[in-house]
This record gives sequence, C-alpha cells and structure tokens, in this order.
Amino acid sequence: MARAHGGCCPWLVLLCACAWGHPKAVDVGGQDVRNCSINPPYLPVTVVNTTVSLAALRQQMQIQNLSAYIIPDTDAHMNEYISQRDERRAWITGFTGSAGTAVVTMKKAAVWTDSRYWTQAERQMDCNWELHKEVGTTPIVTWLLTEIPAGGRVGFDPFLLSIDTWESYDLALQGSNRHLVSIITNLVDLVWGSERPPVPNQPIYALQEAFTGSTWQEKVSGVRSQMQKHQKAPTAVLLSALEETAWLFNLRASDIPYNPFFYSYALLTDSSIRLFANKSRFSSETLTYLNSSCTGPMCVQIEDYSQVRDSIQAYALGDVRIWIGTSYTTYGIYEVIPKEKLVTDTYSPVMMTKAVKNSKEQALLKASHVRDAVAVIRYLVWLEKNVPKGTVDEFSGAELVDKFRGEEEFSSGPSFQTISASGLNAALPHYSPTRELNRKLSSDEMYLLDSGGQYWDGTTDITRTVHWGTPSAFQKEAYTRVLIGNIDLSRLIFPAATSGRMVEAFARRALWDVGLNYGHGTGHGIGNFLCVHEWPVGFQSNNIAMAKGMFTSIEPGYYKDGEFGIRLEDVALVVEAKTKYPGSYLTFEVVSFVPYDRNLIDVSLLSPEHLQYLNRYYQTIREKVGPELQKRQLLEEFQWLQQHTEPLSARAPDSTSWASVLVVSTLAIPGWSV
Amino acid sequence: MARAHGGCCPWLVLLCACAWGHPKAVDVGGQDVRNCSINPPYLPVTVVNTTVSLAALRQQMQIQNLSAYIIPDTDAHMNEYISQRDERRAWITGFTGSAGTAVVTMKKAAVWTDSRYWTQAERQMDCNWELHKEVGTTPIVTWLLTEIPAGGRVGFDPFLLSIDTWESYDLALQGSNRHLVSIITNLVDLVWGSERPPVPNQPIYALQEAFTGSTWQEKVSGVRSQMQKHQKAPTAVLLSALEETAWLFNLRASDIPYNPFFYSYALLTDSSIRLFANKSRFSSETLTYLNSSCTGPMCVQIEDYSQVRDSIQAYALGDVRIWIGTSYTTYGIYEVIPKEKLVTDTYSPVMMTKAVKNSKEQALLKASHVRDAVAVIRYLVWLEKNVPKGTVDEFSGAELVDKFRGEEEFSSGPSFQTISASGLNAALPHYSPTRELNRKLSSDEMYLLDSGGQYWDGTTDITRTVHWGTPSAFQKEAYTRVLIGNIDLSRLIFPAATSGRMVEAFARRALWDVGLNYGHGTGHGIGNFLCVHEWPVGFQSNNIAMAKGMFTSIEPGYYKDGEFGIRLEDVALVVEAKTKYPGSYLTFEVVSFVPYDRNLIDVSLLSPEHLQYLNRYYQTIREKVGPELQKRQLLEEFQWLQQHTEPLSARAPDSTSWASVLVVSTLAIPGWSV
Repeated sequence: MARAHGGCCPWLVLLCACAWGHPKAVDVGGQDVRNCSINPPYLPVTVVNTTVSLAALRQQMQIQNLSAYIIPDTDAHMNEYISQRDERRAWITGFTGSAGTAVVTMKKAAVWTDSRYWTQAERQMDCNWELHKEVGTTPIVTWLLTEIPAGGRVGFDPFLLSIDTWESYDLALQGSNRHLVSIITNLVDLVWGSERPPVPNQPIYALQEAFTGSTWQEKVSGVRSQMQKHQKAPTAVLLSALEETAWLFNLRASDIPYNPFFYSYALLTDSSIRLFANKSRFSSETLTYLNSSCTGPMCVQIEDYSQVRDSIQAYALGDVRIWIGTSYTTYGIYEVIPKEKLVTDTYSPVMMTKAVKNSKEQALLKASHVRDAVAVIRYLVWLEKNVPKGTVDEFSGAELVDKFRGEEEFSSGPSFQTISASGLNAALPHYSPTRELNRKLSSDEMYLLDSGGQYWDGTTDITRTVHWGTPSAFQKEAYTRVLIGNIDLSRLIFPAATSGRMVEAFARRALWDVGLNYGHGTGHGIGNFLCVHEWPVGFQSNNIAMAKGMFTSIEPGYYKDGEFGIRLEDVALVVEAKTKYPGSYLTFEVVSFVPYDRNLIDVSLLSPEHLQYLNRYYQTIREKVGPELQKRQLLEEFQWLQQHTEPLSARAPDSTSWASVLVVSTLAIPGWSV
Repeated sequence: MARAHGGCCPWLVLLCACAWGHPKAVDVGGQDVRNCSINPPYLPVTVVNTTVSLAALRQQMQIQNLSAYIIPDTDAHMNEYISQRDERRAWITGFTGSAGTAVVTMKKAAVWTDSRYWTQAERQMDCNWELHKEVGTTPIVTWLLTEIPAGGRVGFDPFLLSIDTWESYDLALQGSNRHLVSIITNLVDLVWGSERPPVPNQPIYALQEAFTGSTWQEKVSGVRSQMQKHQKAPTAVLLSALEETAWLFNLRASDIPYNPFFYSYALLTDSSIRLFANKSRFSSETLTYLNSSCTGPMCVQIEDYSQVRDSIQAYALGDVRIWIGTSYTTYGIYEVIPKEKLVTDTYSPVMMTKAVKNSKEQALLKASHVRDAVAVIRYLVWLEKNVPKGTVDEFSGAELVDKFRGEEEFSSGPSFQTISASGLNAALPHYSPTRELNRKLSSDEMYLLDSGGQYWDGTTDITRTVHWGTPSAFQKEAYTRVLIGNIDLSRLIFPAATSGRMVEAFARRALWDVGLNYGHGTGHGIGNFLCVHEWPVGFQSNNIAMAKGMFTSIEPGYYKDGEFGIRLEDVALVVEAKTKYPGSYLTFEVVSFVPYDRNLIDVSLLSPEHLQYLNRYYQTIREKVGPELQKRQLLEEFQWLQQHTEPLSARAPDSTSWASVLVVSTLAIPGWSV
C-alpha cells in the first residue's frame, strides 16, 4: 500500500496486514447495508448520493480524453492522517474509511478496500459504486484491462501516487496498450469546487529552544555534511514528508489531525535553503528566526507551496544531483527530475538522522512520558471509582483521558484517535468508539485503552488493559503471557545494528508456548512532538536496524474474537547494554511509566527474572511519577500508584511453591538497590 | 553470489557472509606468498605458471572478437561441490579456492575472491594475475569499464551464470557501450583440451525401493498435479539442479564429490518425460526401471545430456509454458525460452516438494542418524583413549571418523569434507586439515568435529566440541551458552509457516546476554542421500517458511580468534507441537543422537527447563543408540554412552543452591517417564 511506507506510518493498517492473520470483517452496531440487486435498490440513510458528482467528474475526464481516473486515499505527503480537503476519495464515493482506492471509468465506478471496511463501504456507498474486496494495484489493473478499450488513457494525480505505487501501476500496464497519464490538476478538486474545505491558514510557529534537540542551523549543517560525505555527491536534498520539514526547521502547525505539521516541501542545497509553504502564515518573528530576508547558505528562502514542482524542475536543469527518500516522495516530484540527476535512498538523510534522538531529545521525550503517565493514572483511578457505578462508556472515557492529557503542561492534543474498547470491542485492533456507537464499561469485562498525547517536548503512546472484577483464568493467563512477551523483548540484549524483525519473536514466545499469538506488528518508532508512528524505526521487515538513541514502542497483544482484547504497549529507548564481555550491544529502557494491572497478572507464570525486571520497573515508576503526583497534590493517585507498584512476589504452583519463592526472593533483592 | 542460491547450498560461504561479522584472512602455516613488486618477482613453489594457457585463451578470445572473458567458479548446475573437469577457474589461474571469479582481458587477468582465500591466492597465482579483494559483480564491472574499450564485447559461458548473476552483469553494463556475449563453447575448455579430466562414466543406478519415499511414478504424478493446479497452467517443468533429477527418478551416481549425483537435466511435460543424461551409463535393468523404451506419459525418454539446450529450444517453439526455479537455472537454458513462455518461481515444484519429507523419508533419515551416531561415538571413545598419548592429529582423526562411518551399513562416503579442528584452528569455521598441514590433538585444547555421512537412507551432519583436560571457566561458559542456544531453538514452539529468520535469534540469546555471538547462519536443510546443505530449508533470509516434515540443522557456535572454536550442531525434524490451546503450531524433534561434552557444561547456567530438556534428550539417545551399540557388541561404547547420558542435575551458584536444586528436581522428574 502506498501509505505503508509514508512519512508517519499508518500503524493501524499494519495491525491488520501482518503475517499472522487478518481480522474478520467488522460490523459495529447493525447490518443496515445497501442492496443493489433489487429494483429499486435498498439504500440505508447513511448512503451518499454520488450521481451528480460522478457525472461532473466524467465530464472532466472527457475533456482530458481519459478512459479511467484513479482516486487514491492519500495526500501529496503520504501522511497517515489527512486533512478533510484531501479526502477526495471519501468525498467522491461517500465511503469514509481511511484505506481504499477508487477508480472511475466512463461507465463504471469502483472501490477497492480491505476487510476492515467492507461493511462500512456497503453502508456509505450508493449503487453507482462497485465494491471490490481486494487491495493492491494488481486487482485494480486486472479490472481496468477488462473495462477500458485498447489505447485507453488512465489518468491520475501524480502528487497522490508514491514512486513505488506509480511503478507498480506502470509495470502492470506494460504491454497492455493502456497508458498512464499524469494530470497535475486534480479532477476531483475541479468537481468539488468551492465546497472543498479551504487551505489551512493557522500560524506556523517555531518551537521554543527548550523543546528542540538542535537549532535548525545545526540540523542543516548536519545534513549538508552528509551530502558532502556521500559517494554520489548530491548537491541537494529534497524533503517531501511533512515531518521532515517540521523537524529540520523546528516549526510546527496543525494542518492535519494528530500530527503538528504544515503543508510544505524543502529543497536544501549546498548553498541555499528553500522552504515551500504559505508565506503569509509566518509571523515576522518566525521569519526573522528563519533568517528569511537573505539568500545566503544559512538563509531560509520561503517560496510558495504551489511552486515546488516548477522550482525543482528549474533546479534540475543545472549540473545537480538531488537526493530523495523514495518512500515518501510522490511521482509528481519524481517525474520532473531526470533519472541521472537523482540520488535515491529508501529514506532521506533527514528521516535517518531524526530516527536517532540526541541526549536532549531523549530527555525531552522521557519528560513528556512522565507527565503522560500522570494523565493516564488519573484516568485509571477515576475509572476504578466510576466504572462500578455503570455510568462510564467507551466514548465518554476516551473524552476524559483526552481531557486529562489536555491539562498536562505543554499539551497539544491527542497523538491519535483514542482507542477505548470494552469487552469484545477490544478484539478489534482498530476500534474507536463514537458518540453514537459505544459500549458501557463494566466490572465484568476487560477494558483496553490505547492512547497518546502530543506535547511540545514529546509524543506519547501507551496501551494498558484492565479488569475491575474477577477475570477468568484464561484472561489472566493470556494477559500474563502478553506481559511476559513485553518483558522478554524489553530486557533483551542484542548486538548493535540488529534489525527489529530478527528479535520481535521474543515478544511472542510466551504466547506461542501455549498456542496463542497476535496478528499485528510488535512496535513502531515515535517522535518528539512529531509522528506517533514514526518511521523507519520498529520491528517490521522494512524498518532499519536498531541503534542507540532510537525510541520504539513494544506492544504485544492477544485478541479473542467476540470476547476480549489485550495489548500492553510501552515506549522504550534503545540504550547501550553493559555486557560481561566487551562488545557493542544494545537493550531497551522503557520510558512509559504506568503500572500493569495486578488483578490480571498470574505470578506463577513469571520466572524469577521476570519478577526481578518487573519490580525494578515498578521502582522506577515510583521514582519518576511519585514526586510528580505529590507535587500536584494528587494524593489519591499517589496512594494508588504506591499500591499498584508494590513489589510482586512469586506465588508458585503447588508442587514447587516454597522452593520457587525462595529463588525469586534471592534474585529479586538486588533489584531494589537500583 | 551465484552459488549462494544454487541447488545444494554452499554453506561455508554462508558461514562467512552473514550479518554479524566476517572472519579474518586466513593463513594456515606460513606466509610464503608471491611478491610481484620486485624484479624478478618472487614466486613460491606452490605457484602455477599460467603464461602459456593465458596466451592460448587470449587467442580463443581474439577469434570470438572479445575484449574480456568471464570465468566463474561454478558448474552448469550451480553445485556446491564441483567435479575436477568443472574447475576451470582453478585450472586457468592456479588458485584452487572454492569461491572466486576470474576475468581475462587482452592485457590483464584478475581474480576476485573473499577474505578466506586471499593468502591462498597469493600462494598459488603467478604474476600474470591481479588479486582483487572484493566479491560480487559490481567491482568486476567497475574494473571492466576501465580496462576494455567502448564497444568492447564481454564473453561468458551461459551455462556458468545463474539467471540472477547474468542479470546483475547485464544491469551493471547497461548504457556503458560494453556488451555481454553468450558463447556456448567454453573457451577455457578449448585451451584445456585433452588434459581436461574426462566426463564421469560410472553407472547411474536406481535406489532400492526400501530407500525411497515414493516411486518415481508417484513423484512425477505429484509434480504434474501441481502443474495442473497452477494458475498459469505450465505445460512442463524443467529441472536443472542435479539433486532434482536424482530425487525425482530415485537415481544416484558419483559424478561430483560428496553428493551422489549425475550430470543431467529433466523436462517433465504433461505428456512426456525427458531425462538428459549419458544413456550408456544406464544398465538394462535401470532402463527397464525407467520404462525407457516407450514414449507415453509414464515413459522416461533418455536423451543425450548435450542435447538439452536444443531440445528445450525446440519444445519452446510450441504453445507451451515452461516452469523453472530461477535459483538454479542457468542463463544457458533461460536464454532459449521466450519470456512469455516462462513460468518462474524462486524454487521449482520439485525443490519445494523435496523440502518436505514424507513419513517414510522421515523414518529413513532418522535411521541413518542412529547409525551415524554409532560411528561418531566410536570415534569419541577412541579419542578419549588415544589423545592423551599424543599420537592423534586433526588429519588422522578425520580419516578415522570417515573410516568408522564407512563401516556403517548403507554407507556411501562422507557428506562433506570433515572439519577436524583443534585449538585455535576451530576458530576458522571453514577449516579442514590436510595430510601436510594439521595440528596435534591435545588434552589441553578444545577439539571441534563437524562431519557427516552419505547413507542410502539419509544424509547426516553433526558437530560436537570436546575437551579432555581442564577447560577454562570461559570455555565452559561459552560452551554452555552455545548449548543453551541450541536447546532454546530446538524446544521453541512457533506458528506453522513461520520463517526461520524470525526465530533464529533464540539460538543466540544466551550468548548475546554476556556480549558474545557467532558470525554464521544457524542452520540449513538436509536430504535423504542427497545434499548435506539442502535448500530452501533453513534459518537464512532467503529460506522458505518452516513446515511439518522438513529437516534442518541447528548449529549455534562461538569462536575466539586465535584460541578456540565451539559449534554444537544437530539435525532436527519439524513436527507438530501439541499446545494447551488449539492451533497450528510447530516445534523441532532432534534426530542427531550424540551426547554433548559433560566436561564443558556449566550446569549452574542451565534453567530447570534446560535441564529437563537435556535429560529427556539423553534418555532418547539411550533408547535409540544403546540397543544399536549392544547389537554390535560395542560394549565399551555402550558403557561410555551410559556415562555420558547420566541425567544432569543442577549445581546452582552458592547463593541459591539448595532452592534451585529442588526446583530442578521437581521439574525434571516427569522427563524420565518419556
């Protein structure tokens, strides 16, 4: 999928697209779907009538002499979350799911999407649209070959296809006598017209120095130094991902949901810096901060966002070599640069540099996690008191945890849509409640909260699963095995430059032992007030090797369809490991500071080493979060924290009880001196 | 490298080419190397004078109007071990190392090889040859571009380049105005002339039915059924790897070292079977067995080996689609099949089918491992008595273990060159002693034996490391951590269809914990009287997913440069795991039956689960090998086996001693009832 490699990683897509299984089709609350096979067709009230807009689109296609037009689900920066004005596929089809490609021919219109969205598509699309329950370019091209005549022209907006996606369409159409036609003016936008949401216009602001790891000047110099050292001697680096520009210049805004970014590109050459953005959005202070009134090598010249393609094309006329990261550059930029003037890597030097946090960035990210723990603990304490009253539902709960985060210092909203899921809803990894559709929280069910915040100093992401009543033995076993997976990976010592995919099975082994598993990835990178799913760090096959200073989530889970879901997610810093024999080894330091649910831990399954690790971690939580709670006079929460971080001791199975306890005690004692 | 994907995997190359490090350049016994920078040059006696043969080769190149000629290190079947008549690179250069490519231009001659062979090349090549300390096609092409003029023609024997290797040369030369020219007649062979070793002519024989998993007719029907089910409806399967033909027809011979194969190809169509081989090598019984006097769909028509290219080309004129495994098909076959008539997979259906052993094949392979254990145990007992006398060296030891194997029923020689390495030599993973260069075995040093046999019922491969004196604490720790890695991977339970690369780190964790590691892969497939390194099974990134019925080696190690080397290798069968909760899970059943060295195990490092596993394994060894030793009246060996498989009990570190012992005892007891 195009967006799978994009700037911020669309993690929920990964949750459903991994090697160990696909979630079933989802239908939350009712089977009220369209029926196009009867006459007249049955259409639920949730359906959007697309007849007029489709006719208008076909008129535009006719003007361009097109047989088909492709409407992808992304924006020009391969963002995980896109703004409403970029929701072209949703607007033209009525289907609002986050993943799905539409193709319109002169006679037909069709959408391809994955199983998570089949029911939703049937509830939102009218009978102008076919639903294809497949994904990828191959089924789309197979369909196109039967639907459009030989010689047919297939139009697309080059800014909405990644280089990889364009190449796969191009390859699949080769020799078919159908031709891809790049059309810069988006045809859906022409039809959408004045109804299309306007261009964001809030100020673009500079982060205070206290919240940045380096000045933009230092970052620019660092990238230029990489250009000089590069074998192919690139003369410029082109940045297309919004997180790249935000990071490089220490600038933020709020053009898209959850990520503090602004629409922009940057062309950093050996002698100039060009930032493509809407100049009117910068205050005079910010323009001064950017040194934008000059043209020297350390002056940021601001050019209009709409000029990027022409400017790159003009620059590419010279004796230049432009370094790009292919994973998040669109064909719209790629096609104007002659191949021999391209220096390509999967990830740009900015993405690679950003992946490793310096010591200040590490301290900032850790500090944000301490305050984030306060918000989550406040919520957990509140739930403990209020769930038994029967007045809390998933949606009001999500609103409350978002509110608690909002009250924390430096808060800038949630880092993604809060997953607040009770009982069987937690078995759907992508579930989020709405005001209309949600479930009551109950002491009889497990509850899963996966949420995070944006703070000026860091981005957070944590998942905890709790049960306020009497969990079943199976629920406790599954929870404890998920916890063991989290611990086994967190405390692993591994050689520097090991890929995450080589070690992620340590998070699964305790589940595998008894025939359980989970169908999603095990973790992703995270940024400093940037993306909550920050590539290219993580445990997937296309993530880069682990290095000191990277942050990644560690999040094993277990999901029992129709019953409950468990996920335990922490963010961890990659640190040097001290090994008995000298060598370059790494391990993880967990920086999420919320205790696990004691009610769900079966200590008899834990080894002495697990208990030792857990008790050390709890001691760290006390040291980090306790003073913060006391400082705020959150005394009830402080007491809760003390209770929930009491050292755990072994409760062994009958046959080995006293012996195990002794071993545990012996091993656990040194932990307390840390 | 071309051969890395070839039929039998060149395991020793993998040993040196993995992610965690490269062994240092090797110089076994003396630095007597050439010096071409003085006048006259200094040449050791080991050098071969190549002036005359090089001149003759250049004459042949002139006739073909070539600027350069490539001489690869493989044969037409991408074999791991090649026959002397295929050692063209060794003959023309003097350099006999197993890996290295030569290129000759009209003025220069050069060899590219990896660090294992740099010293050897300097001792064997005269000053006609440049040595390039690099591998891969890129440095060769970079050199060619400076050495040959624009418009230059680069000749090669298409039967000595895999499709992948040809493609990488082709890609690297694109746009350079130098052209690859496929020349069927090998130019080195023309020069070699009558001195070239003759075509092997020993009989090609059919395996007795007792030693085959299925009849060739059943295998042919199985492959045809896969052709019918295939989406692209291939009309034929073309087999290029010698192990494919040997397996399909249950035929064996001894054309190449260590592998019981004969030069051949096969074209299995929906209505015919063509075996390309030397017909005179079949007895009339074998011809009858092959039903070779008819032309029906179940008749094996034997055509001459030399006819394969013309026959395939003729067949490809029809309305056909030919299914090939690209990993071990050469460009010589590939170039005569039009692209649209090819159905390509990385591995042919024969390779994929052969990877999963049926129950009879499993039983056969296991039986061969029981007898193989007898041979290895006889050798270990003999060493225990004779090493202290100071009369045993690495080479005489290797000869003796080969002799003991030769005395076992159904023996057909070693399955690879025995690695018999004492002290520091064992730190060189590819080391094998020679009559001239070897080291004495001593009670003061560790000794590593990596060896295997070919038997009519199976192929074996086992590594044991021993110490007859007082090992250092570090040696014991390293040995025990290697053993823990072997156990942790062997007892792992994992979901069906998991790739080996996802789990191989379990074999490393105990070493990683203290900052140790090993620089080679963790295991490879193995055959039934076929390849000892049988692709595509194993733990490398290009191995296929694990499935029930596969066999793989599990062989972690640790190497201390200049001091010692440890490797513990067992062969294991992939079996279904019984899990507490239902699911499709797998685990390993070890089928190598030689105990580890008690003298080197530090039991205090073993968990109760490790001890339980080990004691169960030892019980299995007693049950399998004990009766075999008694049957043969090998009473001393039987006694040795009993001693060396005594149950191990925990000897815990001081602080937790008695508690650990109790846990171990409790857990270990059930093991004895198995």
